Amino acid sequence: MERRKFLKGAALGAGATALATPALAQGGRQLTIVSTWPRDFPGLGTSAQRLAKRIGEISDGHFNVEYFAAGERVGAFDVFDEVASGNSQAYIAADYYWVGKHPGFAYFTAVPFGMTTPEWNAWVKFGGGQELWDELSGEFGLKALTCGGTGAQAGGWFNKEMNSPDDFKGLKMRIPGLGGTVLSKLGASTVSLPGGQIYENLVSGSIEATEWVGPYNDYFMKFYEAAKYYYTGGMHEPGGGLAFGMNASWWGSLTDYEKAVLTAACYEENGNQPEEAAALNGQYLQKLINEHGVEARAFNEDIWDAFGDAAAEVFEETREHSALAAKINDDFQAKLREIGSWRAAAEIEFSAQRNRVLGMI
Amino acid sequence: MERRKFLKGAALGAGATALATPALAQGGRQLTIVSTWPRDFPGLGTSAQRLAKRIGEISDGHFNVEYFAAGERVGAFDVFDEVASGNSQAYIAADYYWVGKHPGFAYFTAVPFGMTTPEWNAWVKFGGGQELWDELSGEFGLKALTCGGTGAQAGGWFNKEMNSPDDFKGLKMRIPGLGGTVLSKLGASTVSLPGGQIYENLVSGSIEATEWVGPYNDYFMKFYEAAKYYYTGGMHEPGGGLAFGMNASWWGSLTDYEKAVLTAACYEENGNQPEEAAALNGQYLQKLINEHGVEARAFNEDIWDAFGDAAAEVFEETREHSALAAKINDDFQAKLREIGSWRAAAEIEFSAQRNRVLGMI
Repeated sequence: MERRKFLKGAALGAGATALATPALAQGGRQLTIVSTWPRDFPGLGTSAQRLAKRIGEISDGHFNVEYFAAGERVGAFDVFDEVASGNSQAYIAADYYWVGKHPGFAYFTAVPFGMTTPEWNAWVKFGGGQELWDELSGEFGLKALTCGGTGAQAGGWFNKEMNSPDDFKGLKMRIPGLGGTVLSKLGASTVSLPGGQIYENLVSGSIEATEWVGPYNDYFMKFYEAAKYYYTGGMHEPGGGLAFGMNASWWGSLTDYEKAVLTAACYEENGNQPEEAAALNGQYLQKLINEHGVEARAFNEDIWDAFGDAAAEVFEETREHSALAAKINDDFQAKLREIGSWRAAAEIEFSAQRNRVLGMI
Repeated sequence: MERRKFLKGAALGAGATALATPALAQGGRQLTIVSTWPRDFPGLGTSAQRLAKRIGEISDGHFNVEYFAAGERVGAFDVFDEVASGNSQAYIAADYYWVGKHPGFAYFTAVPFGMTTPEWNAWVKFGGGQELWDELSGEFGLKALTCGGTGAQAGGWFNKEMNSPDDFKGLKMRIPGLGGTVLSKLGASTVSLPGGQIYENLVSGSIEATEWVGPYNDYFMKFYEAAKYYYTGGMHEPGGGLAFGMNASWWGSLTDYEKAVLTAACYEENGNQPEEAAALNGQYLQKLINEHGVEARAFNEDIWDAFGDAAAEVFEETREHSALAAKINDDFQAKLREIGSWRAAAEIEFSAQRNRVLGMI
């Protein structure tokens, strides 16, 4: 996933566009949403805009929603302070952007070797995750609900086949965040380039590999021109959620009706975004292979073993930050194994066998 | 999943309980929902009741919702005609109950060797599935939205280890629906017992195996006392959705606001139900193993190959029904491969490797 491009996109912002329904009901609520995504950014931005519009629709205009993409009201990474201070009521973001404020925030978007989207939703909504998220967000005057996600992100594009953990030694790869920290432990030289600069660096050889999102988003980046091996399974962002982060005092002032509307809209979009991504990624993976000769590859077990060892080190480092960070990590790891073991034994087992029988893998 | 128990549960119904919010707004809409689930039936019934309550909450009482469990207004399997005729506005059901009216309905709940829940949602909401569902339902004066699901159901309980497709020959197993048809092709003697009679038949030896739902629901059935081998991965109901089936004329009479409210409520619950099931199944799989010595097992590749061959025969038989049945099947199969191939290469691959590294399988 990309970070700096949002700042770049911010500069392109051309003022706010109100998405409220025409009639503002008597006694309605102002809801100003500031987003970390550039306007119309595929998948992420379009999902956030759909959510903002939906809150107006399902409340018949009771919420007067104004949506500001990155830079249209505040910069992408200023939305946290903007909402914590009460200047705006809500942000839409990936909460792992706030790991500098507290490393526990990583667990509420995605962590390397962590939960997949179905697992994470089970944990957050029905396994105690929301209570931990509330405790963490509450320390900053915020209250967050999950409102989307990309699904499991692809492992990335490489200009050579990766046959051993040693192949990562010295590899110059664009991969930001904790996923980059994991690969650094394997000896990779990781960088965090903005989206608009990845292609040129890959073509020039300044970097030898990059990850981005998944087939739909990656298709338009043309990485296949310089790196034809596409490792579809990745460890760095296996799933999770995005955040509709509200000012906690404002949330506390809402009626039960108003809370129900916001929760329903967020949870509706929480399904829609990854489901839309799954449909598009299916189409575009075929296009990449059939139109551009992309070679889809899977990392071997030795490489996955090395990923696992490195991720375990990252988790230990996170635990050392604070009691709350350790509490979040430990609950996350326990629920990953509890929820994940059932899914391993049922849906994942079924999928693997069906895919083998139908020749899909 | 169980069918006849709903009829039995129907007899226990004790009249309607209105779930509307106290204040019925001026110009509000009456919404009478009839359900195929007994009141408070775990997972299915509780989800349907939560949805009915939610429609009142997020519309601030604009919809005056009355919810009738199976038998409280009409019998479980009379809800289709009740809503098609306009006597009630909506039903909550598994649409595969209507395969006697048209075999295409099976694809809008779950079919053997079919899509998993994330795949099915991608198909229905973003891959053309809803349009086919509308065409099919429209032939009966109905319009359906997905509103839940159980996730992948467990393969079932057996009193012996299943090591070969031949082990199904002559096996007396309780498994209804198309899953039963698949096992019949392997030589099994399948029956469809109501839930309250499975345990006694298993203990007496009248049946040697049974499927039900998953660890949470199965736990309370005590099948482990008579059949300790629990095959967690199953082919018969790998995923899909449940239906909020509305009278099509009524749906057509709604305002955009009213349609948005119903869609948001259904889609919110569409996530909640399988996510809640995933959280509970994770807990209860551990309890079954640790408290009751249940032996979790996986079918081997020979058995999965046989399941696949038999399922392919079932699909061919379905196609022969009509042009619409063939059209639905063919789109379903194509999208299964397109969406499923991406998921196989990304989330399923990640899950399998992570689970192996962490010793979860």
